[in-house]
Amino acid sequence: MTHVFDEALSLESAGSPGLVTGATHPAWANMVGPFGGVTAAVLTRAIETHPDVLGDPLALTVNYAAPIVDGPFELALNPVRTNRTNQHWIVELRQDGETKTTATAVFGVHRDSWADTEAVMPSVPAPEQLPRGAQEFPIWLSRFDLRFAAGPFPQTVGQASPSSQSLLWVRDAEGRALDYAALSAAADMFFPRIYLRTGQLIPAGTISLTTYFHASRAELEEVGADFVLGAASANRFSRGFFDQSATVWSRGGTLLASTHQLVYFKG
Amino acid sequence: MTHVFDEALSLESAGSPGLVTGATHPAWANMVGPFGGVTAAVLTRAIETHPDVLGDPLALTVNYAAPIVDGPFELALNPVRTNRTNQHWIVELRQDGETKTTATAVFGVHRDSWADTEAVMPSVPAPEQLPRGAQEFPIWLSRFDLRFAAGPFPQTVGQASPSSQSLLWVRDAEGRALDYAALSAAADMFFPRIYLRTGQLIPAGTISLTTYFHASRAELEEVGADFVLGAASANRFSRGFFDQSATVWSRGGTLLASTHQLVYFKG
Repeated sequence: MTHVFDEALSLESAGSPGLVTGATHPAWANMVGPFGGVTAAVLTRAIETHPDVLGDPLALTVNYAAPIVDGPFELALNPVRTNRTNQHWIVELRQDGETKTTATAVFGVHRDSWADTEAVMPSVPAPEQLPRGAQEFPIWLSRFDLRFAAGPFPQTVGQASPSSQSLLWVRDAEGRALDYAALSAAADMFFPRIYLRTGQLIPAGTISLTTYFHASRAELEEVGADFVLGAASANRFSRGFFDQSATVWSRGGTLLASTHQLVYFKG
Repeated sequence: MTHVFDEALSLESAGSPGLVTGATHPAWANMVGPFGGVTAAVLTRAIETHPDVLGDPLALTVNYAAPIVDGPFELALNPVRTNRTNQHWIVELRQDGETKTTATAVFGVHRDSWADTEAVMPSVPAPEQLPRGAQEFPIWLSRFDLRFAAGPFPQTVGQASPSSQSLLWVRDAEGRALDYAALSAAADMFFPRIYLRTGQLIPAGTISLTTYFHASRAELEEVGADFVLGAASANRFSRGFFDQSATVWSRGGTLLASTHQLVYFKG
């Protein structure tokens, strides 16, 4: 049986390498349209499976320009520039001729180099020591097994926190192994930090999401279907927008991705 | 007399609102081509002066796809989607028909909202208590008055630092006031963190730069030509790439921008 994530990533050629079609999947429904993470994953997968792709994802920026409605979509993929070791993409997701999402991506070839991880993995209890969060809504949340070590969803309206930090373990609820598409989705699993700071589930949504992929294929394989640790916090909230940054770690301490987003909110 | 930064931002219409031309400026030369920050500034200014622009810059991602050579360039500006309060752009910088830089931008209208700055401004001596760095090369560095409180350029080859953090005050060397274009440029003033960690000035360059603009016009005006404080550090170096994040603060403690980049390096 195909996993619902792979079903959501299913794309078909629409006559030329630069044009593919897909459709939103009910298993990944958000409050309005699909979970932004699955859109990011679809964009990553579309580039990965383009016949001219060079190497692996290095950087992805997704701009959520307008709500995606349930149903089919079209992706226009433009490999604007291919260099010896890296490649630059512009992608647009359209529905009925209207651009709903734009993205740029850098793909490239890795090579051995000086290496070090300077960011520090937060110290938290193992996921087995933490209860699984009961997350049934929005629907996409139920696709993950989430274990919060800090900064869970506010449990009571008005329960404001002085910190916007969340620390949480996450894995696919049905044991699907991590790959670049799933890592693209995981980058958007951090609910808007404004919820924590105000204790209010006020309307908010990602407007721009950037992810830097640090994980090699071997490191992804080593994670497999195991939990990864996410750590997210915000910088500044002002005039209807805020930014939040996050890191995603393997249990063994490999920094798999760092990711940043600008979020709009009403309140 | 026009400031050399404004000279570099000088653009001319090329017959339609979506096509403008400009040229690199010798005052902003980097080791190869122009300083990436001035390219980011040109992109910001081109959108700001487009007849259909909505509001102020919120997010900008610039992908440096290929070296820009000294001389004229063309910018293709596409306002892909305009909503009630925000607007999404795709921009390409071309020379002789070749795409050298791609960008996406989100512009928008601000409104009053709940507000807080959660990031903490680093505590450093005032710029007047720090010596001005002697930076004559690359040429663009001499356009700024830089005062390092921590993490200056390695003074001796091989002088590796355990930390990639730099803390520095910066202002325009000739007293030009800060605006969104200058803030776009300031986001790229942080030299590659690999220099600090290895003590080697190995070849390295920004491949993707994302900036979130927090400053309102009033906050920019309050800064005027004063110093702003930059704080930058890296997350992970591996297989020829690393990411670095930075914040830019007014002297009074306003977080003006947060910015992130992916950098390639050889070594």
